[in-house]
Amino acid sequence: MTNKNQWALTPPMGWNSWDCYAANVTEDQLLRNAEYLRDKMLPSGWEYLVCDIQWYEPLAGTGEGEYRPFAALNMDEYSRLIPAENRFPSSAGGKGFGPIAEKVHRMGLKFGIHIMRGIPRQAVHAGTAIKGPGLTAAGIANPFSICRWNSDMYGVDPEKNGAQEYYCSLFDLYASWGIDYVKVDDICNTNMYPHLPYSGRGEIELIRNAIDRCGRPMVLSLSPGPAVIEEAWHLAEHANLWRITDDFWDRWEALKDMFRRCELWQAHVQGGCWPDCDMLPLGNIGMGFKRPRSTNFTRDEQLTLMTLWCVFRSPLMMGGELFSNDAWTLSLLTNREVLEVLKTGARPRQLRRNDNEALWMNEAPDGKINLALFNLSEENRELSCPLAQFGMEKAEARDLWNGKNRTVSGVIFEELAPHGAAIFRLSKV
Amino acid sequence: MTNKNQWALTPPMGWNSWDCYAANVTEDQLLRNAEYLRDKMLPSGWEYLVCDIQWYEPLAGTGEGEYRPFAALNMDEYSRLIPAENRFPSSAGGKGFGPIAEKVHRMGLKFGIHIMRGIPRQAVHAGTAIKGPGLTAAGIANPFSICRWNSDMYGVDPEKNGAQEYYCSLFDLYASWGIDYVKVDDICNTNMYPHLPYSGRGEIELIRNAIDRCGRPMVLSLSPGPAVIEEAWHLAEHANLWRITDDFWDRWEALKDMFRRCELWQAHVQGGCWPDCDMLPLGNIGMGFKRPRSTNFTRDEQLTLMTLWCVFRSPLMMGGELFSNDAWTLSLLTNREVLEVLKTGARPRQLRRNDNEALWMNEAPDGKINLALFNLSEENRELSCPLAQFGMEKAEARDLWNGKNRTVSGVIFEELAPHGAAIFRLSKV
Amino acid sequence: MTNKNQWALTPPMGWNSWDCYAANVTEDQLLRNAEYLRDKMLPSGWEYLVCDIQWYEPLAGTGEGEYRPFAALNMDEYSRLIPAENRFPSSAGGKGFGPIAEKVHRMGLKFGIHIMRGIPRQAVHAGTAIKGPGLTAAGIANPFSICRWNSDMYGVDPEKNGAQEYYCSLFDLYASWGIDYVKVDDICNTNMYPHLPYSGRGEIELIRNAIDRCGRPMVLSLSPGPAVIEEAWHLAEHANLWRITDDFWDRWEALKDMFRRCELWQAHVQGGCWPDCDMLPLGNIGMGFKRPRSTNFTRDEQLTLMTLWCVFRSPLMMGGELFSNDAWTLSLLTNREVLEVLKTGARPRQLRRNDNEALWMNEAPDGKINLALFNLSEENRELSCPLAQFGMEKAEARDLWNGKNRTVSGVIFEELAPHGAAIFRLSKV
Amino acid sequence: MTNKNQWALTPPMGWNSWDCYAANVTEDQLLRNAEYLRDKMLPSGWEYLVCDIQWYEPLAGTGEGEYRPFAALNMDEYSRLIPAENRFPSSAGGKGFGPIAEKVHRMGLKFGIHIMRGIPRQAVHAGTAIKGPGLTAAGIANPFSICRWNSDMYGVDPEKNGAQEYYCSLFDLYASWGIDYVKVDDICNTNMYPHLPYSGRGEIELIRNAIDRCGRPMVLSLSPGPAVIEEAWHLAEHANLWRITDDFWDRWEALKDMFRRCELWQAHVQGGCWPDCDMLPLGNIGMGFKRPRSTNFTRDEQLTLMTLWCVFRSPLMMGGELFSNDAWTLSLLTNREVLEVLKTGARPRQLRRNDNEALWMNEAPDGKINLALFNLSEENRELSCPLAQFGMEKAEARDLWNGKNRTVSGVIFEELAPHGAAIFRLSKV
Repeated sequence: MTNKNQWALTPPMGWNSWDCYAANVTEDQLLRNAEYLRDKMLPSGWEYLVCDIQWYEPLAGTGEGEYRPFAALNMDEYSRLIPAENRFPSSAGGKGFGPIAEKVHRMGLKFGIHIMRGIPRQAVHAGTAIKGPGLTAAGIANPFSICRWNSDMYGVDPEKNGAQEYYCSLFDLYASWGIDYVKVDDICNTNMYPHLPYSGRGEIELIRNAIDRCGRPMVLSLSPGPAVIEEAWHLAEHANLWRITDDFWDRWEALKDMFRRCELWQAHVQGGCWPDCDMLPLGNIGMGFKRPRSTNFTRDEQLTLMTLWCVFRSPLMMGGELFSNDAWTLSLLTNREVLEVLKTGARPRQLRRNDNEALWMNEAPDGKINLALFNLSEENRELSCPLAQFGMEKAEARDLWNGKNRTVSGVIFEELAPHGAAIFRLSKV
Repeated sequence: MTNKNQWALTPPMGWNSWDCYAANVTEDQLLRNAEYLRDKMLPSGWEYLVCDIQWYEPLAGTGEGEYRPFAALNMDEYSRLIPAENRFPSSAGGKGFGPIAEKVHRMGLKFGIHIMRGIPRQAVHAGTAIKGPGLTAAGIANPFSICRWNSDMYGVDPEKNGAQEYYCSLFDLYASWGIDYVKVDDICNTNMYPHLPYSGRGEIELIRNAIDRCGRPMVLSLSPGPAVIEEAWHLAEHANLWRITDDFWDRWEALKDMFRRCELWQAHVQGGCWPDCDMLPLGNIGMGFKRPRSTNFTRDEQLTLMTLWCVFRSPLMMGGELFSNDAWTLSLLTNREVLEVLKTGARPRQLRRNDNEALWMNEAPDGKINLALFNLSEENRELSCPLAQFGMEKAEARDLWNGKNRTVSGVIFEELAPHGAAIFRLSKV
Repeated sequence: MTNKNQWALTPPMGWNSWDCYAANVTEDQLLRNAEYLRDKMLPSGWEYLVCDIQWYEPLAGTGEGEYRPFAALNMDEYSRLIPAENRFPSSAGGKGFGPIAEKVHRMGLKFGIHIMRGIPRQAVHAGTAIKGPGLTAAGIANPFSICRWNSDMYGVDPEKNGAQEYYCSLFDLYASWGIDYVKVDDICNTNMYPHLPYSGRGEIELIRNAIDRCGRPMVLSLSPGPAVIEEAWHLAEHANLWRITDDFWDRWEALKDMFRRCELWQAHVQGGCWPDCDMLPLGNIGMGFKRPRSTNFTRDEQLTLMTLWCVFRSPLMMGGELFSNDAWTLSLLTNREVLEVLKTGARPRQLRRNDNEALWMNEAPDGKINLALFNLSEENRELSCPLAQFGMEKAEARDLWNGKNRTVSGVIFEELAPHGAAIFRLSKV
Repeated sequence: MTNKNQWALTPPMGWNSWDCYAANVTEDQLLRNAEYLRDKMLPSGWEYLVCDIQWYEPLAGTGEGEYRPFAALNMDEYSRLIPAENRFPSSAGGKGFGPIAEKVHRMGLKFGIHIMRGIPRQAVHAGTAIKGPGLTAAGIANPFSICRWNSDMYGVDPEKNGAQEYYCSLFDLYASWGIDYVKVDDICNTNMYPHLPYSGRGEIELIRNAIDRCGRPMVLSLSPGPAVIEEAWHLAEHANLWRITDDFWDRWEALKDMFRRCELWQAHVQGGCWPDCDMLPLGNIGMGFKRPRSTNFTRDEQLTLMTLWCVFRSPLMMGGELFSNDAWTLSLLTNREVLEVLKTGARPRQLRRNDNEALWMNEAPDGKINLALFNLSEENRELSCPLAQFGMEKAEARDLWNGKNRTVSGVIFEELAPHGAAIFRLSKV
C-alpha cells in the first residue's frame, strides 16, 4: 500500500516563486534561485524548488490585476495546461517541465509546481477532448464551480465519467516530467463557496487517487486557506500539507493572528500531515507585484515568525528571492538548533495565550523541552513560565537563537522586545 | 421625466409560460394561450402574455436537467441572444419576437419576455463583439459572476466601459420588437452570492437606465426571490415588481409560508412597486417538466391562494396552460369582486397571524374594509375579528367569493375548512 | 379608536439626560436643563425633557462600570420601580415623578422617562407581589430573558397570566405621574438574543396595550438599536420611534455609518413612526461617565449630523448639558429653516451614496426640494447634482445654514470641506 | 504532576439516572440500580453509577416542565448545593452524598454526580457567603451568564476574586463525599451563547484546577453537546469526556446523525480524552418524564448503536433502568468481544460514509482489524469492503456479535437489514 505520509515525515522545506515573482516567474529565475538553494540552504534541509501559479499563461503579469481575465492559456490536445514557452524555453517541443526538473534534480533538489483544481474554461467552451475515448472537457466540467479570483478553470464534477481519467492524465504527465511536489490551489478553503452544493472533498480525492496511481511519490500541498477545522481529518487522510491561513504577507497583524490559527490546529500536527502557515515573506519580495521591497517585518518579528513556524512545525517555504538575500536573512533560515525544533519536536502545543503574550512548547526527542516565548504586545515585557509543568524544579536553559546556556530554578523569566520571541531547550538538572 | 411607476399602477396580471411549458415553450403554444387570454380573461384585466426562459436555446428541454450545460445559444453579431427559429418560426430572418408581439398586440394584449442578467459565456469565450466601436463581450463580462443554476451567462461588470451600451443595445432591440414587459432573472436575490463582492444593484441600475432610454414603456419584473428586505427601497426605486419568494409551486407548505413573506413585505406595497408572490400554479401545469398534472392544491387552498394574492396585492401571473382550463379554474381567476380588492385596495396589512390562522385587510376606495380570513390549520376552525378595530359596531359583510351579504354586530365570525379562506367587504351600518 | 400616530406627527424634539449624566442624573440637574430648554429651545420646537436609565437606583454611578451588578433598587409593593429619593427628593412620600412632571408641565414642556422592559430580578427572587389578586413577580418572569448589559430585570413572559396586568400597572402609575413620553430599553434590537425563542414583539405589544388603556397619550420610544429591518412594519404599528443604531457617540466613524443606516430605513419614515438616529452628542457631554468633554465632532461634522438628522427626519434628542451650551451649539440647534426641513419635509430619500459622498432630499410642502449634500471623504470635494431629476432646468437655491440664495442652471455644484455638509432649498425658476 | 488522562485510560462505562428518572431520582432508585450494576455488569467493565441533575431540588419533577422556574434549592452556608433530604435520606445531618458513595464503593463501583456550572441565583440574590474570608456569591456571579434551559444558576466570572476559591470549595466537598466522577453541565457547547463575551474555557479551567487540587481523582465529563470542534484541543487538555451531541434519545434520525458527528470527531479519540456520544437510551426509559417506554429502537438499531459507540470508542453510560432490563438488553451490553473493541481498539476512523451506508474501523492490539459495517438505508443492503486497504488478500473474519468465523478473499461482503450493523475482527491469513 502506498502511504503518502512517508513522503513528508518532517515538515517540507523549500522555496516558492510567488512572494517575489507573482504569476510571472521565468525559467531563468527558477534556476538562479535553485543554485542558491543548493549552495546555501540545502545543507540545512531546504530541498524543494516550487514554481507557483500560471506557468501556462504566456502574458502573465501584463494585465492590470494579478491575472488577466479570460487569458488564453497554453494547452495540449488533452486539455492539459503546459508551460508557456516564452517564459520556460526548455519546455519547447512538448518537453514540459521535464528539462527544468532534471536540472533541479541534478542539483540534489526536488521540483514542485502549482496547479489550479479543475479544467480550463477555454477547453470547455472550445469543445476540446480529454485523454480517454470519447471524453471531453465539457463533459466533466461543473459549470457552477469556479474560482473566485482567477478565471482560468471550471471545477471538475467528480460524479462525471472521465473525471478521474482527467486527473490521472494530469499526474501521469507530471510524473513523466519528474515532479516531486504539487501545490493544488482553489481547493482547500471550502467555506469560500457556501451557496454551492460543493465540497472540496471530491476533487481532493480524485487528486489523491491520481497521485497514488501515477507511480511517483509527490508531496501534496493544498491551498488556499484558511482550511476549515471540520475537515481536519479528511485533509490529514488525503494531503501532506494544507494552508491554515489566507495568503500570508509581511504585516504584523497577520503574524499575530497566526497564533490564533496555530492554537486552533495544534492537535493536528503529525508526521506526513502538516497544517501550513504559508510562505515566509522574508528578504526581498514583491517584485512581481510591482511593489519590490525588503520584508516589512522587523528583525524581532522575523524571529517571532521563524520561532512560531518551527515550534508549531509548519512547513517552511521561503518566499523571498534567494540570490539577493542578505546575511541576516540567511542566518535566520539556517540556524541549526532552531531547525532541529522543527524537524524533531513532538506534540507541539500552546501553553497559554492572551493579547499580550503566547507560550508554546514541543518535546525534543531526548526528553528535553523546547519552550518558545512570544511578546505580542507593543512594549518590552518580561515573560515567565514555571518549570513545574514540565516536571522540573531546576533546568538548564539553552537559548537556541544565540546559543547561550543558563541555569534556572522554579520559573524561567525572559525579557522580550515588542513583537519579539525567544526559544529555549530545557534540560532537567 | 420618465416615471416607471406609471406603467404598473395596479398589480400586473397575465400569463407566463414557465409553469406549464418550462424552458421549451413554442410560438404555437404562446399563441394558443394568447387567444384564450384574449377571449376569456382580458375582460377581467389579464393582459400580459410572457414567454419565459431560454427562448434562444434551440434544444431547450432535451437534456437531463432543466438546462443543458454549456448549450449553444442563438445569438446575433452583437452578442445578443435571439429566438431559436426552430421553436419560434416567425423570428426567422432577424425578426426576433417582432411578429409574435405584433399578433399579441392585435389581440389587445401586451407581450413580455424573460431574460437572464449578463452576457453569454459563449460570446465571451468566442471573443465576439458587442454594439459600439471597439467593444467586446469579454471586455464587460465579470468572470466571477455566474448564475448558480444555469450556465448561459456571465454577469456584466457595471464599472466596465461598454456595460451600459450593451444593456442599451438589448433593450433597443426589445423595443424594436415591441416588448412591453421584461422579467429579468438571476438578479433579485442578492443573498445567493455571499462570497462575491457582488451586489445586484449595479446591473439593476444598468437595466433601469436602458429601459428609460429605449423610448418604450416596459414593465420591469425581477427574479428570482426571495428578494432581501434590506434592498426594499432600491427595488422600489428601480423595478415594478420583484419576487419575494423562491419558485412557488403547488405545495401547501409553500403557500402557508407565503403568509410569512407577505407579513415581511406588507409595508412596501404601493402603486408601480409590487412585491411579487410568483406565478399561480393552477389548472394544468408541469408538462414541460415531464410531470404533467392538475394543480396539487385543493379547492380550499386555491381560494386561499387567490385571496392572499389579492388582499396583499401581488401581481397575478397565471402559470397553468390556459386553453385546457376547466370552468372552476376560470371562475377562480375571474371573480370580479375579488379582483377589485387586488386592483383598488389600499394599504394592505396583516391584522394577526399565528400557526393556525391569519387575518389580512386592505382599504376599499369608498371607506369600506376588505377583510380576509385564513384557516392555516388542519381542522375546521371558526375565525373571528372584532369590528371595533375598523371603527365599526355593526357592519354589512359581503362575502366576495359567493356574493352573499349578512349583517354582523361586534364581531364577525366565519367557519372555515382546513386551508380555506374567505374575504368580506365590510360597510359600516 | 386611539391612534398613537397622532401623538408624534412630527419627529419628537427634546433633551435626554444620558449623554451628559449617564445613569446618575438628579432632580436638580433635570430642572436646570428644563429651564434652559424652556427659555432657549422651546420656541424652536424642542419640548421633551427625558430622564434616562436607573432613576430607581440610589447608588447609580458609584460602581466600577456603568451599572452595579445586582444593585438594590427602589421598588413599591407591586414590584414597580420608583424614583430613588436621595436623587429625586420631590418623589418622597410615594409621589414618584409627579412633582417633577408638574413643574416641567408648568414650563410648557413635556416629561419623559426611561424604563427597562421586564420585572426586577430582585422582586422575583424575593417573591414579591404584582398588582392583581394572587399575582406574583415570579409568576410572570421569564428566567431566560435577561438584558445583556444591565442586571436589573428579567423579561416578562407574555403568555403568563398577569403579564398584561403588570404592564398596565406600570403605565397607570406613569399616567398618574403625568408622564408624556416613555423610552423603553432592551426591547428594540431583537437580534441580540439569537439563542432564545424570544421575540421582542410580545413585550412591545403588552406595552402598546398598556399605553392605550392607561388613558394618557404617551409617546413610545424603543431602544436600543439597531432595530432589525424585518420588524419595520411591526415597529411602525406599535411605536412612535425606534432606534436604528446602537448607542451613538461623538466619533466620525459612527456618524459616517449613520448614512448606511438611513439608507436602509428611508422607506419607513412617516408621521407618527420615526426611525431614530439616537441622541445628539453635542456641546458638553460625558460628565456622568467620568469623561467630561466638549463633543469630539468638528463643526463640519456637527453640520453634517444636524443636516442628516433633519433631512432624514430623525427625532432630535439633545444629549449635551443644556445650560453650559455655547452660542455655536445653540445656533446649530435652533436654525429655523433647517428645522423646517425636519418638521415638514416629505418622503426623505437618498439620491446616491458612495464612500466619498452622499446626497439626500426630501420634499418641502410647497413643491420645493430640500437637497442635502455631504462630503464623507477626507479631502475638500466638489459635489454636484443635476437639477433634471427634480424636473427643473433652472432653480433658485437657498443655502439653509447661512441663508444665502443663488441661481443655478442645469447642475448645482458645492465645494465642501472634509466631513462637511450643505443643505439647499431648491425652487424652480 | 497530576495527569487526568490516567483516570480514564479507556472509555468510562457506567449507568446514569437521567434517561429513566429525569430530574427526580431518589436514593432508593440509585441503590437498586447499583446492585444490578454490581451483579450483572461490573464483570464486563461497567463501573460508574452517576446521579444526574437537580439532586438539590426537593420538589424536582413536580412542575409542568422539566424544571420548576426559580425553584428553592437545598444549599449550605457557603452557597453550595447539597442533596435534598426528602429524596436522599442518608444525606441528612450534613452528610451529603457521603453515605451513598460509601455504599457504592463497597459494591466495587464508583460514584458520580451531575452539577450545573455556576453559583445558585438564589444565593446571589439572598446575599449569601462563599467559603473564604469576605467572599460572597454576588461577588463572583456573572449576571449575564445564565443557562438557557434551567434557572438554577448564574455563571461564575473567572476574573473575579473568589471564583477559584468557590470551585475549590465545591470539589473539596465532593472529595469529602468520595465522588469519583463529575458531569458538569451547561459548559460544553459554547455556541449556545453567541451574543455574550462568554467562552466556556474560563469555568472549565477553574474546574480542572479545582479537581487537580482537591486530592482525589475524579473523571470530568462535560455537557451538553454538541461540543464545538474548534475547542477540541482545549477540551482534550482539560476534560476526560465531552459530549459531541445534544441530548440523544431513541430516534433513528438522531442515531443516523451520530455518524456525522463521529466522522467529525474521529481524529480526537485518545486515552483519557473521549468524545462522548451520550447515554444509551436502551431498555426501560422515560419514567421520570411521564413517558415510560421500552426503547423505541429496533433490535437492528440497537446493534447499530452499540457497534458505533464501540468502534468509535465513545464512553458508555447506560440510560435505561437496570433492574428491569430484559435478557436481550443485558446481552447487548455485555458482549465480551464487542466490548474489547471499545476497550482496546486503536485509531478509530471512518472508511467511508454516504446516505446509505457507513464503514468504520479501529486497530486491535494484535495487528488485527476491527471492521464495522452499517446499513443506514431503509432496505436490505449488501455492504462490501476490499481487504487490500488493510494490506490483506485473504482474511479470517470473526463476526463479533454472534461469534462465528469465516474466511474471505479479496472483498468482504455482508448483507444487512435496514438500520442494521455487523462488526468483524479480521486476521490476515
